[in-house]
Amino acid sequence: MARVEPLPTVRFADGSVRIIDQTLLPSRYEIVSLATVALVCEAIRSLRVRGAPAIGIAGAYGILVALLEARTKSLRELCECLADATRRIGATRPTAVNLSWALDRMRSVWENATEGRAMVDALAHEADAILAEDLSMSAAMTSHGATLLRSADAVLTHCNTGGLATGGGGTALGAVFAAVGEGRRIHVFANETRPLLQGARLTAWECAQRGVPVTVLVEGAAASLLASGRVASVWVGADRIAANGDVANKVGTLGLAVLARRAGVPFYVVAPSSSIDTSRASGADIPIEHRPHDEVIRFGGVATAPEGIDAYNPAFDVTPAELIDAIVTERGVHRPPYHFARVG
Amino acid sequence: MARVEPLPTVRFADGSVRIIDQTLLPSRYEIVSLATVALVCEAIRSLRVRGAPAIGIAGAYGILVALLEARTKSLRELCECLADATRRIGATRPTAVNLSWALDRMRSVWENATEGRAMVDALAHEADAILAEDLSMSAAMTSHGATLLRSADAVLTHCNTGGLATGGGGTALGAVFAAVGEGRRIHVFANETRPLLQGARLTAWECAQRGVPVTVLVEGAAASLLASGRVASVWVGADRIAANGDVANKVGTLGLAVLARRAGVPFYVVAPSSSIDTSRASGADIPIEHRPHDEVIRFGGVATAPEGIDAYNPAFDVTPAELIDAIVTERGVHRPPYHFARVG
Repeated sequence: MARVEPLPTVRFADGSVRIIDQTLLPSRYEIVSLATVALVCEAIRSLRVRGAPAIGIAGAYGILVALLEARTKSLRELCECLADATRRIGATRPTAVNLSWALDRMRSVWENATEGRAMVDALAHEADAILAEDLSMSAAMTSHGATLLRSADAVLTHCNTGGLATGGGGTALGAVFAAVGEGRRIHVFANETRPLLQGARLTAWECAQRGVPVTVLVEGAAASLLASGRVASVWVGADRIAANGDVANKVGTLGLAVLARRAGVPFYVVAPSSSIDTSRASGADIPIEHRPHDEVIRFGGVATAPEGIDAYNPAFDVTPAELIDAIVTERGVHRPPYHFARVG
Repeated sequence: MARVEPLPTVRFADGSVRIIDQTLLPSRYEIVSLATVALVCEAIRSLRVRGAPAIGIAGAYGILVALLEARTKSLRELCECLADATRRIGATRPTAVNLSWALDRMRSVWENATEGRAMVDALAHEADAILAEDLSMSAAMTSHGATLLRSADAVLTHCNTGGLATGGGGTALGAVFAAVGEGRRIHVFANETRPLLQGARLTAWECAQRGVPVTVLVEGAAASLLASGRVASVWVGADRIAANGDVANKVGTLGLAVLARRAGVPFYVVAPSSSIDTSRASGADIPIEHRPHDEVIRFGGVATAPEGIDAYNPAFDVTPAELIDAIVTERGVHRPPYHFARVG
C-alpha cells in the first residue's frame, strides 16, 4: 500500500497553533501562527483552517494556547480559563461535531486533573494524540476508500476533502490520492463549491500538487456531467454523521446525492469516526450553521448583487442515508442500512 | 390585468443597436450603442446582451447595422454583405434558437428582395416586428404564467428571465412581476447562477427595481431550500425547446428540475414560441455551447483556481420534458405530454 504524505495542515509549535492559511490558497502558501485563543477562534470562524477533522485538531491545540495565555498557577483558576476557552472555541462553528468532540476530550483531561504541572503534560499529550489518531484514521479510511476506485475512473468531488480538511491525510480526496498512490489513474472533477470556492481553490491545488489531473466546474454543471455517464463515483466528506447515517456536509452535497442517484452513480462519504455523532438519531437533529450574507453577495470585496440584497447562506445541508451508497471510516466500508453506535 | 412596463433591453436608434450593457449591472446601468456588426457580435458573445429572446432581437437589428455598414448600392452586393453578417452573428452563440430564428426571418426578407430601397424598408419593418412581437408575446406569456402563482408564494428562479432577457417584458421572472402587478405578494429566491452570476447581478437588480423582495443563494443551497418546503414553484426560461418538450436552458436548470421533482415542487418553463425548435425531436439534438474556462477559474481578473487548471464550462444543459410540470408560452399554459408542431 502506497503511503500518501500528509500536509502540515495543523500543528503545534513554540506555543502556537500553526496552520496553512487556507484563505490565501491557491495564490499563496503561508503557515500562520495563532498564539492566542482569540486568533484561534478567528482562524476557525473565517475558515483559515477548515474541514471537520482539521478544526477538531485546531480546537484541541487551542486549549494548549489557552493554558499558555492563562496568567495563573492556581489549578482552579487554570480550569476556569480552560472552560472559558472551550466555550469560545466551541462556539465558532456549530455543525462539525469534531470540534466539540476534541474539546470534550481535552475537557475530560483538565476536569479530572489534580495538579497543574501534570495537567499541562496530560493536555499536551491528549492534543498530540488527537492529531496522531487523525493521521492514522486518514491512512486507514483513505486506504479503505481506495478499494472502491478502479483505474481510469473519473470522480466528482465537492468542497475540499484532502489533506487540508484534516490533520494532513484527507478523507474523500485522500482516498483518491491513495488509489493514485497504488498506481491507478483517476481524473478528478472538482465542484468549485460556492460561496467560498474550496473546490476550485483547495481541491484543485492539492490535485495539482500531487500531479493528479483535475477539472473544475460550477455546481450547476454537475447535473449534466453526471447524466453524461463520464463520472464513475461521487466522493464527499462529512461534518457530522447521525446514528442513522444521515450526513451533514458542505451545502450542495444533498443536491449532488440526489443527482448521483438519478444518474445511477455511486455516492460515497468518507469521514473518521470522530465525525459520527451517535447522540443524534437523524440529520434533523444536527444544527446547521448559517454564515454571513457577504460570502454570497460579494466576491473579493466586489459586490456581485445590488447593495443591501438579502441572501440565504446555510453552510451545510443534510443528505439522507438512503442516498448514500457507502460511508467509509477508518474501520472500513459501511453499507446501508447504517446503525452507528457509541464505541468504547 | 396590470401591465408590467418593459425595460429598454434592446432597441435600434441612430443606426445602432442600443442595449443595456448587462456585464456592468448591478453596479452601473449604461446604454451602449453598437454601430458595427463586429460590435454586435462582441456584445452577444460576451453577454453584454443575453437571454434567448433578447439576442434574437439584437441579431435582427444587427442586420440593419450590416446594411448601414455596407459600402455598396448594388442589391447583389448588399445581399452578400447581409449573408456575411448573418453568418457572423449566427455563429456567436449556438444554443438559443431565437438568434437563428430571427436571422432566418430577416434572411427571408432580403433573399426575396428585388430592389434596394424597398428591401431596406422591409428589413427595418421586419426587425421592428420581431421586437414588437416579442413585447407582445412577453405580455401574453407572463399573464398566462401569473395564473400559476398565488399570493404569499415564494418562488425559486435560475439565471435571469426578466425584462433583461427579452425585448423588455420578460419570461419566467416576468410572470412573477405580472402576478405582483395583479396585487399578489411573491418572494423571489434567486439562484446566483455561476459562472456569470446572472441571478445575483440581474434578477436581484430587476426585483430591487420593482420593489419585489428577493433573496440570493448559491446553486448548492437550492437542494435544502427546496427540501425545506418554503418554495411553492420553480421558474426558468428556455434557450431552445425541442418538439417533445425537452428544454435547453442555462446550466444548472436540469439539477433544479430533478430537485424540484424530488421535493414535490412544480417546475415551470416560460418562453415565447420563438424558442421552440420543432426541427429538433428531442433535447439530444440541441447543440450545447461550451464557454471559456476563465469564466469558471477567474473572477473579476482574480484567479479562483491554480493557474492553468482545466475547467468544464457548458453554458447550458437539457432538462427532459418529464420533469417539467408546465411550459408557458404566449399561447397559454401547456401541460405534458408536450407535442410542439410547426405553426404557420
